[in-house]
Amino acid sequence: MTKASAHLDTVVSDIADDMRARTERGDVATYIPELARVSPKHFGIAVITADGHVALGGDSDMPFSIQSVSKVFTLTLALGRYGDRLWRRVGREPSGSPFNSIVQLEREQGIPRNPFINAGAIAVTDMILSGHQPREALGEILSFMRFLADDPTISIDEAVAASEQRTGFRNAALANYMKSFGVLDNPVEMTLGVYFHQCAIAMSCKQLAMAGRFLAQSGRNPSTGLQVIQAERTRRINAVMLTCGHYDGSGEFAYRVGLPGKSGVGGGILAISPGEASIAVWSPGLDAAGNSHLGRIALETLSKRMDWSIFGA
Amino acid sequence: MTKASAHLDTVVSDIADDMRARTERGDVATYIPELARVSPKHFGIAVITADGHVALGGDSDMPFSIQSVSKVFTLTLALGRYGDRLWRRVGREPSGSPFNSIVQLEREQGIPRNPFINAGAIAVTDMILSGHQPREALGEILSFMRFLADDPTISIDEAVAASEQRTGFRNAALANYMKSFGVLDNPVEMTLGVYFHQCAIAMSCKQLAMAGRFLAQSGRNPSTGLQVIQAERTRRINAVMLTCGHYDGSGEFAYRVGLPGKSGVGGGILAISPGEASIAVWSPGLDAAGNSHLGRIALETLSKRMDWSIFGA
Amino acid sequence: MTKASAHLDTVVSDIADDMRARTERGDVATYIPELARVSPKHFGIAVITADGHVALGGDSDMPFSIQSVSKVFTLTLALGRYGDRLWRRVGREPSGSPFNSIVQLEREQGIPRNPFINAGAIAVTDMILSGHQPREALGEILSFMRFLADDPTISIDEAVAASEQRTGFRNAALANYMKSFGVLDNPVEMTLGVYFHQCAIAMSCKQLAMAGRFLAQSGRNPSTGLQVIQAERTRRINAVMLTCGHYDGSGEFAYRVGLPGKSGVGGGILAISPGEASIAVWSPGLDAAGNSHLGRIALETLSKRMDWSIFGA
Amino acid sequence: MTKASAHLDTVVSDIADDMRARTERGDVATYIPELARVSPKHFGIAVITADGHVALGGDSDMPFSIQSVSKVFTLTLALGRYGDRLWRRVGREPSGSPFNSIVQLEREQGIPRNPFINAGAIAVTDMILSGHQPREALGEILSFMRFLADDPTISIDEAVAASEQRTGFRNAALANYMKSFGVLDNPVEMTLGVYFHQCAIAMSCKQLAMAGRFLAQSGRNPSTGLQVIQAERTRRINAVMLTCGHYDGSGEFAYRVGLPGKSGVGGGILAISPGEASIAVWSPGLDAAGNSHLGRIALETLSKRMDWSIFGA
Repeated sequence: MTKASAHLDTVVSDIADDMRARTERGDVATYIPELARVSPKHFGIAVITADGHVALGGDSDMPFSIQSVSKVFTLTLALGRYGDRLWRRVGREPSGSPFNSIVQLEREQGIPRNPFINAGAIAVTDMILSGHQPREALGEILSFMRFLADDPTISIDEAVAASEQRTGFRNAALANYMKSFGVLDNPVEMTLGVYFHQCAIAMSCKQLAMAGRFLAQSGRNPSTGLQVIQAERTRRINAVMLTCGHYDGSGEFAYRVGLPGKSGVGGGILAISPGEASIAVWSPGLDAAGNSHLGRIALETLSKRMDWSIFGA
Repeated sequence: MTKASAHLDTVVSDIADDMRARTERGDVATYIPELARVSPKHFGIAVITADGHVALGGDSDMPFSIQSVSKVFTLTLALGRYGDRLWRRVGREPSGSPFNSIVQLEREQGIPRNPFINAGAIAVTDMILSGHQPREALGEILSFMRFLADDPTISIDEAVAASEQRTGFRNAALANYMKSFGVLDNPVEMTLGVYFHQCAIAMSCKQLAMAGRFLAQSGRNPSTGLQVIQAERTRRINAVMLTCGHYDGSGEFAYRVGLPGKSGVGGGILAISPGEASIAVWSPGLDAAGNSHLGRIALETLSKRMDWSIFGA
Repeated sequence: MTKASAHLDTVVSDIADDMRARTERGDVATYIPELARVSPKHFGIAVITADGHVALGGDSDMPFSIQSVSKVFTLTLALGRYGDRLWRRVGREPSGSPFNSIVQLEREQGIPRNPFINAGAIAVTDMILSGHQPREALGEILSFMRFLADDPTISIDEAVAASEQRTGFRNAALANYMKSFGVLDNPVEMTLGVYFHQCAIAMSCKQLAMAGRFLAQSGRNPSTGLQVIQAERTRRINAVMLTCGHYDGSGEFAYRVGLPGKSGVGGGILAISPGEASIAVWSPGLDAAGNSHLGRIALETLSKRMDWSIFGA
Repeated sequence: MTKASAHLDTVVSDIADDMRARTERGDVATYIPELARVSPKHFGIAVITADGHVALGGDSDMPFSIQSVSKVFTLTLALGRYGDRLWRRVGREPSGSPFNSIVQLEREQGIPRNPFINAGAIAVTDMILSGHQPREALGEILSFMRFLADDPTISIDEAVAASEQRTGFRNAALANYMKSFGVLDNPVEMTLGVYFHQCAIAMSCKQLAMAGRFLAQSGRNPSTGLQVIQAERTRRINAVMLTCGHYDGSGEFAYRVGLPGKSGVGGGILAISPGEASIAVWSPGLDAAGNSHLGRIALETLSKRMDWSIFGA
């Protein structure tokens, strides 16, 4: 083991110990009933470096609902298929608003500000769905995750998907609203069906960090050596993660952590140290902006101790 | 000269040639009468690397009104004096709004979203003014710029300051609005007087790139070896530049250029490649979001050809 | 015939002649495909005075889609059933926004500003639906219209209802949005089904003026002598019509016409001269705020010539 | 004395007794320091009928700061001078927002929604000021009030004006904001100077009811028989009072009281029963929307017992 890998192992282990001991852990999301059952006691971390070293800590093998972290992967899929035409349907500016805000859509004729707020992610999923049956589109998303993570066992938690489908009125509002402006091509129920299922994909920190490797390595999947997406597009996805990945807490995340990242209300965060590492953390308690409370703290410590901030030494 | 320096010289020279030839140059800002007189034909670029190499192109020695680029330096000054208490008066989230929007202030009780929109910069200037006469505060800002750029000739264009003072009603609205919420401590006219003068500082690309070096070098001023501000705060200023430095074009700038940067309506942009270089470009024509049209294109080319994006190779 | 009745007949006849001759007629609503087929050439007017005189002009017997005019009658029904508890679900302030705006809902936790914007009317319909099957609720609304107009032939235009059901994405967005805040009790599709059908009720000006008589006569239906609703509630419905009946054109309507009124995108307007008359006008061309262009002009003339403004002689 | 006058006297006397006894009286405005000193114990009422009967109750002769009630009179003055050209500078739709909101101005290019929110009243005062010195404009406004009230003793409370001038930052924000859009013609300080002084006019309920008589009598001043303003414009001023006179409590006031009215933060309300009476009430405690708490209740009782609602018997 290299000295750098050993240092990383120590840092990851320290973080896991620190997080286990903390009592202030945020609040578990309650608006999706199935998610509300998860214990806030969990914390997991997985770091996979460019040279293939894997550092794990805490509940790094326990699957959780990736929720909005899935938006990074559907954006990648859709960019691969549509290229820059994608940006006719969705912007790439921070919204300055919560994840489920509808106000901005009215001001901007139904075009979502970016692909990482719910409206934008629904629009991206609608593009993936076009020309397919919902089952096919979902199959494509799931296959993509398995391919990226090099793990065929990744699956969808149907209970979570069903729970969201029953209660996702706000997402239904967003989708219908965009539909009224002609921003969605497919029937609202079909697009939402795929969207709720992609959010319900269950992955562990280790699987998620595996899946994110291409973002740290100029678009290349190191398991296969295949180019998942062009290097330039990879940089750009990282840029959108940095500016928009944490809703109205994106500035705070950039300020404290200094890495591109995308959070989900299941408590997971995928973060990228370009050229260095793909990182996944998970802790179900959320802060006021809906991002994992301990996850953000863990990443702040990791970034500082590994000197990984993209904003300088 | 190193091979890297020679490559940089070529790239900078190519960019200057390319920009000189372009006909689509954006529109010069007209809302400050003195700025409206500047010819859109100008383009300048200056790059100063961490090892001290200086690459210049175009009108790199012609002074221009730095306008909002000054906000980076007043933020640095105020962070040095107040530390994290500064963030009680101003946020650090992207606003998703134009530079002079007042809407967000009403929703958030007079606290500006970040220090780079006008309201936020006025609040920062008000903090610098506290305990001083306007003349002293302005003297401190100017001395700081001269110290950073290692150039005692930098001065204020009084005609621009006077022009802005006569016509700056929107800034007066922002300042009075914040004053009504108790966010400003000093008389509105005094704070605005300092603010209008700091915006009217005239600098060339070369001077501006010199002044920005500490942001590329972990907070150290290489001329003197003195630490201008702690390394951690330097990273954080860069993070705020990345997420908020171009108003509602910040996402676009991050997406295309991939470097922290701050623009001004005079057509200047300061950009930072952490650990690598401090960069200033200038061209007076602006795009729809109020950022230099050619300046952004020049930085996009530079970042790509030098492989400087913070979002990966 | 009394002198007053003869004068009214002359005025109504003059108005019908004037409106027939006008060339600037506004634009027919296109967002509901079935409505887009109606010719802008139509104009009808019906005035029924407190002493029972009926003055008709133009296409006063031609049925049209009453659309949002139905909101007056569902509000009456729901107030009758729920009394002031109704105001927990919907406000009574002008919204200052277009009929289908969703922005205000986000700011105010899903509570619509008033019962005459779409969101508010959907919330009122949801209250009428509670405890019933959609078919029963719709039957109750239709029976109420027939009773008020003393005309059992009034019916629903199923083609219009179906057209709206297929394309009413914006209303589906509003309904889902309110549902996410718990403002609706019933399944969204059921509430919307009733709402789209109530809007598709087809009535002539004469039938509509008949149905509105109770609002001009302290809540009493003169056909039967029955009190439809208390006098005090009648005044209050008139007040809400005055302040909120024409969306973001309500101030303009009050300013020019000076009568409580409610418009629909089918081009109909019901207006009330308290103590004097119930008035219905219809012309399918709409102004920018979505209110009948000629209908408003006709009412302005009628109010002036009959000296009916509630704001003084 | 007629029977009607005797009935009115009884009603007014009952109301004064009732209001004196109430303990829930709202909160006195604190944002203007001079106003904060007034005791919430006061209540006054004055009703002047079309036939000249004067009914007084409580502190009907005690002067108070009329504040925004002055907006009715400056609107009248400006309409007399500019006619319908006035509406190019200010709208006549309810704003749906608090009295001092600036959000709407940004959306609508600096044009205030109506003349009764602060921004709109400042724009109207600016029109009165044009072509005059501030002292002359203020003299004209004061003379107009004295003429209407037939009382040369009405004057300005300079302490209140000075208090507001020192603390009126939000109004300064509104004025500067409009100035930035070119909506104001005069220097901001001059327009605000006149505005703060017009708001500081001190009048008793009796004087205010006297001044409002022309609005109840088709524009005629019964003291002199002179037509103050055309009958049609009088109706229209009443209409704007009904829809916009109580900020975001306008719908509530119309719903409960059913009369055009204009409130001020000094606790005064002028209300008009067209053809019947001019009414002034005063009690300094305010409700959440900034309107006199007891004043509104008193007017609701008066309107009901006198059967004066414009919305029907």
